[in-house]
Amino acid sequence: MRLNELYPQYSVDMVLEEPAGEDGADVDAAIVAYPHGAAAPVVAALREQGTKVVDLSADFRLHDLDTYGRWYGEHGAPQLLDESVYGLTEHNEEKLKGARLVACPGCYPTAVLLALLPLVKQKLISIDDIIIDAKSGVSGAGRTLKQNILFSEAGEGVSPYGIGSHRHVPEIEQELAFAAKAPVAVNFTPHLVPMSRGELCTCYVRLAGKTTANEVRAALAKAYAKSRFVRVVEDGVVPATQHVRGSNECHIGVFADRIPGRVIVISAIDNLVKGSAGQALQNFNVMYGFDETLGLEQLPLFP
Amino acid sequence: MRLNELYPQYSVDMVLEEPAGEDGADVDAAIVAYPHGAAAPVVAALREQGTKVVDLSADFRLHDLDTYGRWYGEHGAPQLLDESVYGLTEHNEEKLKGARLVACPGCYPTAVLLALLPLVKQKLISIDDIIIDAKSGVSGAGRTLKQNILFSEAGEGVSPYGIGSHRHVPEIEQELAFAAKAPVAVNFTPHLVPMSRGELCTCYVRLAGKTTANEVRAALAKAYAKSRFVRVVEDGVVPATQHVRGSNECHIGVFADRIPGRVIVISAIDNLVKGSAGQALQNFNVMYGFDETLGLEQLPLFP
Amino acid sequence: MRLNELYPQYSVDMVLEEPAGEDGADVDAAIVAYPHGAAAPVVAALREQGTKVVDLSADFRLHDLDTYGRWYGEHGAPQLLDESVYGLTEHNEEKLKGARLVACPGCYPTAVLLALLPLVKQKLISIDDIIIDAKSGVSGAGRTLKQNILFSEAGEGVSPYGIGSHRHVPEIEQELAFAAKAPVAVNFTPHLVPMSRGELCTCYVRLAGKTTANEVRAALAKAYAKSRFVRVVEDGVVPATQHVRGSNECHIGVFADRIPGRVIVISAIDNLVKGSAGQALQNFNVMYGFDETLGLEQLPLFP
Amino acid sequence: MRLNELYPQYSVDMVLEEPAGEDGADVDAAIVAYPHGAAAPVVAALREQGTKVVDLSADFRLHDLDTYGRWYGEHGAPQLLDESVYGLTEHNEEKLKGARLVACPGCYPTAVLLALLPLVKQKLISIDDIIIDAKSGVSGAGRTLKQNILFSEAGEGVSPYGIGSHRHVPEIEQELAFAAKAPVAVNFTPHLVPMSRGELCTCYVRLAGKTTANEVRAALAKAYAKSRFVRVVEDGVVPATQHVRGSNECHIGVFADRIPGRVIVISAIDNLVKGSAGQALQNFNVMYGFDETLGLEQLPLFP
Repeated sequence: MRLNELYPQYSVDMVLEEPAGEDGADVDAAIVAYPHGAAAPVVAALREQGTKVVDLSADFRLHDLDTYGRWYGEHGAPQLLDESVYGLTEHNEEKLKGARLVACPGCYPTAVLLALLPLVKQKLISIDDIIIDAKSGVSGAGRTLKQNILFSEAGEGVSPYGIGSHRHVPEIEQELAFAAKAPVAVNFTPHLVPMSRGELCTCYVRLAGKTTANEVRAALAKAYAKSRFVRVVEDGVVPATQHVRGSNECHIGVFADRIPGRVIVISAIDNLVKGSAGQALQNFNVMYGFDETLGLEQLPLFP
Repeated sequence: MRLNELYPQYSVDMVLEEPAGEDGADVDAAIVAYPHGAAAPVVAALREQGTKVVDLSADFRLHDLDTYGRWYGEHGAPQLLDESVYGLTEHNEEKLKGARLVACPGCYPTAVLLALLPLVKQKLISIDDIIIDAKSGVSGAGRTLKQNILFSEAGEGVSPYGIGSHRHVPEIEQELAFAAKAPVAVNFTPHLVPMSRGELCTCYVRLAGKTTANEVRAALAKAYAKSRFVRVVEDGVVPATQHVRGSNECHIGVFADRIPGRVIVISAIDNLVKGSAGQALQNFNVMYGFDETLGLEQLPLFP
Repeated sequence: MRLNELYPQYSVDMVLEEPAGEDGADVDAAIVAYPHGAAAPVVAALREQGTKVVDLSADFRLHDLDTYGRWYGEHGAPQLLDESVYGLTEHNEEKLKGARLVACPGCYPTAVLLALLPLVKQKLISIDDIIIDAKSGVSGAGRTLKQNILFSEAGEGVSPYGIGSHRHVPEIEQELAFAAKAPVAVNFTPHLVPMSRGELCTCYVRLAGKTTANEVRAALAKAYAKSRFVRVVEDGVVPATQHVRGSNECHIGVFADRIPGRVIVISAIDNLVKGSAGQALQNFNVMYGFDETLGLEQLPLFP
Repeated sequence: MRLNELYPQYSVDMVLEEPAGEDGADVDAAIVAYPHGAAAPVVAALREQGTKVVDLSADFRLHDLDTYGRWYGEHGAPQLLDESVYGLTEHNEEKLKGARLVACPGCYPTAVLLALLPLVKQKLISIDDIIIDAKSGVSGAGRTLKQNILFSEAGEGVSPYGIGSHRHVPEIEQELAFAAKAPVAVNFTPHLVPMSRGELCTCYVRLAGKTTANEVRAALAKAYAKSRFVRVVEDGVVPATQHVRGSNECHIGVFADRIPGRVIVISAIDNLVKGSAGQALQNFNVMYGFDETLGLEQLPLFP
């Protein structure tokens, strides 16, 4: 099939082919974008031939097989979990260098963890009281034919979904627990918003001790001082998904809460770039020691 | 000016006239929809002539003059505050009967208070930890010419605004404090969503003692059992602004939180109906002893 | 199934039942909303029991079986075509009174024929050069799961479809030919627009003889002078789908063309009301001699 | 002012400065994006210093001063009209090489002329019967504060505007007349569509002699065979603004008309790229002999 039969918008002359079988031995690296469950055997076959893999599915993100099973069913290649590196680029750069299998984070975990991981690591916030109110564009649900993502159903309205039972929750909790070295249970409430792309996570967290909102902002700014893609916006500037559309950027803002001892951390990404294909490419770049911005220097498209 | 010069969509043949001056004495009741600040003197003039008033502005909502001053400037008719009844119809029906001046609630306070007032009154939730993440369509900002509500700015994106400083906060806190008989400070974080109308408030609250989500839902269902417009949806049903569009309804859902001791209460309204003109009419009906549904039986428009 | 399982937005307590079989004899009238092809046998069964039918499908609109066959396949009840009345209410009022089977027009034919029928009947325009550029919201495609009507596909873009081959063409041509007493071939080019409801037809037509745009407007205004739902807007006013949203109205505007001898006639309807369910109800009212506005007096919802 | 005060989405560290006065002598080339009328004196000042200019306003597009005056008022620098080259890149490449002043076409003229100029030049279509039904996203109206482009006004609806009186008409007619060597009057009817960017022009034209739709497609394909940005899509493929979003591409499709002797030519562009800033850059590249794709190789953003 030619690329522009599937996507008529691309003039690029390219033929899509079935992934090579035995010939795969010639393939140095593969970016795998199969559905959850279907990815595992494909990745396993590639790894057996020595091909390095950047995987976009959930199959190699969760390290606990029971947890995986509860959300996605039986695992197709558990033997590979040990070598899998969680591809939240900014937080795993060292491990990604030379990695053989990278599990790219889900879109929501990307936005949430970029906002909260530095704060949990530095014990600036309580891990018992993390409330994440997330808003996502409709492409977050994929291209599958489902009634709720038809234009006339999703348009002109906002609705929550998967309350308390979204499969990105175990992934968020796993990574926060690694950072906190203690179990974490978060509130994660996603909402469907009538736009095609973009994700905004409004995180309501309790400050540890006498930490202030300004200290939280400073800590995040320091953590991402050298990052090309994560930008902690100045006091008074408000993150918006319009500001990252089509780019690999993540904008993070910090705001004081009227409730004493609390703070609001807000992050915005484009779920299809930093939340998916863009981060996969970024991981690939880091894995091979390339400049991490290769192929990713596109500015946000606005409006 | 004829109505359809202003709104070409209405075939109704009606001439808009300046509010009568002295002739106002013949007017039994007036629904006043002036901007905040401009409403007070108009209402005062009407009241002096004995005209009953349902006012949509913020001018007679706040009972503390200092608080009013901080958000809206000097008050134009403080002498009327005492007779003003807060027009959240379902919670003030007795006082509204025979009232002479009704202050209709803001759109956000309507959605929030319908969800939380019964819980605060019955001490089912803590008043120290109320987090309200609100999402609003663009008409919530009115018809004023502002860059951020142009189609190309607000479209295809979601952004928070007025974090910690939205003028609906004092109104919410005042009414919750009345119910709790104690001061209340809430987190209120509104977001602008690319749709014309609709408001969804996702409230994250801490349960008092061993209360469960089911008990919270039951308490709300009981509180609104006789209400024509407020509907507590069944377990598993999710409120959505699409479901109340164009109607005077408010849908409320209750969901368990993964964080122990917490619960999520979600309410959806159409900000232009139950959040504004519809509730004004409902108050007018109650004030005069009419059936409260007069002129308001329109079903939601979907899609 | 209860109504609000299918449409959670309706608080109305109603149970949806399978259409009665033999008991149907008790049913005076039925509004049938089955898909094209599936409607014919259902309507036939009802008619055999003497039930009057207002049918929303295409099954009884086309009077030529070959034409029907070309677009929809074999006809399931050709014997009923003779008694079928084409339900463009404003143009068939006499026949509708006492009709036993009404075929409601398609949404596009409704908008187009209301704009052009009076002009063709009065020979004010040429029938050899009718160009109709139509724009429709996504609900025009129904609720079927198709990729092109997913939010992320249809959003933020406009695209033509069914160019030269839309199945509403034979219906438009049939009715224009009846009026002209001569065969008519029209250009009909529909476009999908990112909105849920609404249809705008921009008709480019050639004037007969020395007719002017003002004379065309006057002729339409006269034709619909007594109509409750069709409104010919004044010179300078522009029809817009926003102005008829949620209502049974059709707005028609006439504009001079820079090309000498041509005129532009533009009509706007809500495809789900005047273009579908609303007109069905209007036909039902006329069929039974009720006021045609019964249940249809809803004003447009704006914004 | 820093760039990201105006556009918070751009992390690029850039300070916006007033255009240099006398120091302008050091400036080789300027891209001027002032409003119509305001551009002329700025361009004149730059040209006096020898600076080459690519201008995005309408000030140097029309060569007839009377026509300019009728649409835009008195001209601020008529002496420069002679050296101005009309920057429809694909059709003026030779003149653009070494040009000192380039007038970039309006967005609508770009889409229309790319579709029709080759056909007029080759006398494949009649110039007496050109009907252009255009659909534009809201950014086509700029960032000026006007009520009709507020989200709640423009959303969920489609409406025509400027019927018979849009100021892009004289520009389209001028260029078609140059190609035809005869006066041309076209019908041009633009519609506002609820999307941020994108423009689709559906052109209904009469074929000269016995030309067929396939011959028209072949002629266009040949005319743009070497073009990097203009792509004549294959028979059966439909142009859509979604397919060019964010790119400098123009897609053109040709379709047979049911009316004998007519054909439909449809073109799609992104009004902010090929219809504005992108084409300006393309002209700049050609002016200086650079590869015309420099800075413009961005693929369409979909969804």
